[in-house]
Amino acid sequence: MLSEFSLIDRFFARRAARMRAAGSAHGDGVKDVEDASRGATLGIGDDCALIAPPAGEMLAISTDMLVEGRHFFADVDPHALGHKALAVNLSDLAAMGAKPQAFTLAFALPRADEAWLAAFSDGLFELAERFGCELIGGDTTAGPLNLCITVFGSVPPHVALRRDAARAGDDIWISGTLGDARAALGIARGEWHADAGDAAHLRRALERPEPRVALGLALRGVAHAALDISDGLAGDLMHILERSHMNATVNVDALPRSAALSRLPPEIQRRCTVAGGDDYELCFTAPVHARASIEKVSHNAGLLATRVGTISAPDLAAAVPAITWHDAAGTPLTLTLQGFDHFHAD
Amino acid sequence: MLSEFSLIDRFFARRAARMRAAGSAHGDGVKDVEDASRGATLGIGDDCALIAPPAGEMLAISTDMLVEGRHFFADVDPHALGHKALAVNLSDLAAMGAKPQAFTLAFALPRADEAWLAAFSDGLFELAERFGCELIGGDTTAGPLNLCITVFGSVPPHVALRRDAARAGDDIWISGTLGDARAALGIARGEWHADAGDAAHLRRALERPEPRVALGLALRGVAHAALDISDGLAGDLMHILERSHMNATVNVDALPRSAALSRLPPEIQRRCTVAGGDDYELCFTAPVHARASIEKVSHNAGLLATRVGTISAPDLAAAVPAITWHDAAGTPLTLTLQGFDHFHAD
Repeated sequence: MLSEFSLIDRFFARRAARMRAAGSAHGDGVKDVEDASRGATLGIGDDCALIAPPAGEMLAISTDMLVEGRHFFADVDPHALGHKALAVNLSDLAAMGAKPQAFTLAFALPRADEAWLAAFSDGLFELAERFGCELIGGDTTAGPLNLCITVFGSVPPHVALRRDAARAGDDIWISGTLGDARAALGIARGEWHADAGDAAHLRRALERPEPRVALGLALRGVAHAALDISDGLAGDLMHILERSHMNATVNVDALPRSAALSRLPPEIQRRCTVAGGDDYELCFTAPVHARASIEKVSHNAGLLATRVGTISAPDLAAAVPAITWHDAAGTPLTLTLQGFDHFHAD
Repeated sequence: MLSEFSLIDRFFARRAARMRAAGSAHGDGVKDVEDASRGATLGIGDDCALIAPPAGEMLAISTDMLVEGRHFFADVDPHALGHKALAVNLSDLAAMGAKPQAFTLAFALPRADEAWLAAFSDGLFELAERFGCELIGGDTTAGPLNLCITVFGSVPPHVALRRDAARAGDDIWISGTLGDARAALGIARGEWHADAGDAAHLRRALERPEPRVALGLALRGVAHAALDISDGLAGDLMHILERSHMNATVNVDALPRSAALSRLPPEIQRRCTVAGGDDYELCFTAPVHARASIEKVSHNAGLLATRVGTISAPDLAAAVPAITWHDAAGTPLTLTLQGFDHFHAD
């Protein structure tokens, strides 16, 4: 086993080295021990990699572990898995307003299947190359399939998009559309049905989420608080409210959705947009005077940004923050506790 | 499951917060967004943590994944596992001459066993606190037991102890003793026998390796190349030779060993010291004129450092580097290919 896994290490290391060389050729990825402010000084092959953020910036760091049977199916397309494993980490950088710089990859594999690994690494490196994010180290071992990526980006600390920065009166914005990934899961499970074209669109959202890196960078100094929606809007927005000590009001009918999702029954649209999970869109708050700026920077990032609600100061008597949900007519809606999956009108 | 795992997250986050608060109280871990050069500006609870190395230094980064059945037994003492999971990562920092700063922890667990987690986190945080290494983020999920730690240290790039810096004429040094962990494994497997006292000593080396952080820091500017011995001296020294394009000569009888290991048969001593694995001692090279300095800094770090061989320039015709092994009498020994486990005299 050792020699097989050692070969895999070399396979990934070679690919990383090619990317490194290509970066140098473009003149934007020069690796030089004299210059501590650019890229990685030392990548794969030593006890540690050595990196530093540009002068005056900090490293933003996030780690995610993906497990077979929980985060993906055993028969997942390995190219899509390679894409998604890195995409969900880049999404955390986007939510911080950080610029991707590097990542480490640790994984356990039940066996060394070269075709599977080739497709997986293609999916991974295609995304890494697109965002100039260099593989600087990792670990490979035999074991039940498990992927752990730690990603590094750079951001000046004063413009980092934190969860604790929402202010009363802020608009709540959502990038792109919500709910497609959850709809794809429901279709895969046979819970719901869509025609082949819609099902393919929804499945793509589940398998190949696009990290909103350009938007995150453009929101530096414009947005107040931000996060990426990975567990569903209802749960994730609560993280902003808890950290910012604020309340929120959200119009569920304003939540942006794809044409494919719009062709599913309205009840399913609500479940998917409010509590879907695996969206990897940004949820952010910003002052009212920033509306025109946000529409402009979103447009430049090739995305629609949609205002879906408002941040408000909490009731002084309330110990925990609350989200007030309503429909387009202004009728309040109550979210029940069963997995955030069911609504009923009060 | 989600709520259980969410509770676990909070359990670790609280412990990290206490450590953070204690660090601030000591005046050496102040977390302030205005000061990008100290500790973590933002720890657990946002999309990313934010950290930076001190001015002029770089972040040294290493990641290790530990899997049940491969790196530890299912019935491992969870306190020891918590210690070892972080220790093997700190050992990589030591081998780079880097000062521990922070770490992330991602893990998959088959179930949320609170007693197990309490012991695991005790072992983990006791070591983290001893080295001032702050938990800044992580991920928890259900799945087959898997631990992935990524560790961050700081080092000025010019004094980092790299693998590619060995020079012809350098002495080869080993910290502490080798082979105890491999001997413990052999005893646990019933291959060999030792009395209860020796077995307990050996087992402790296997379960609670001590990262040689103080020695690594003291070797900055003194040693040329270094690494930590995790897969056995024979394999790991080869990594230095490959990266430095050098050869080595090693006296197997000079390899330092504990009293407990010295009471096992000579053939087993050789197997364990040369190709044992899980040692987490430093192997480093240094010029002859540094001998007195190395003995002094090792003594200050509470360790014995032992000279075991010499680096030499490679034969120009040879494509790959080579280690020449000999015994105390100068008789050459040949290492066979069966797992580096058997010697025979030429």
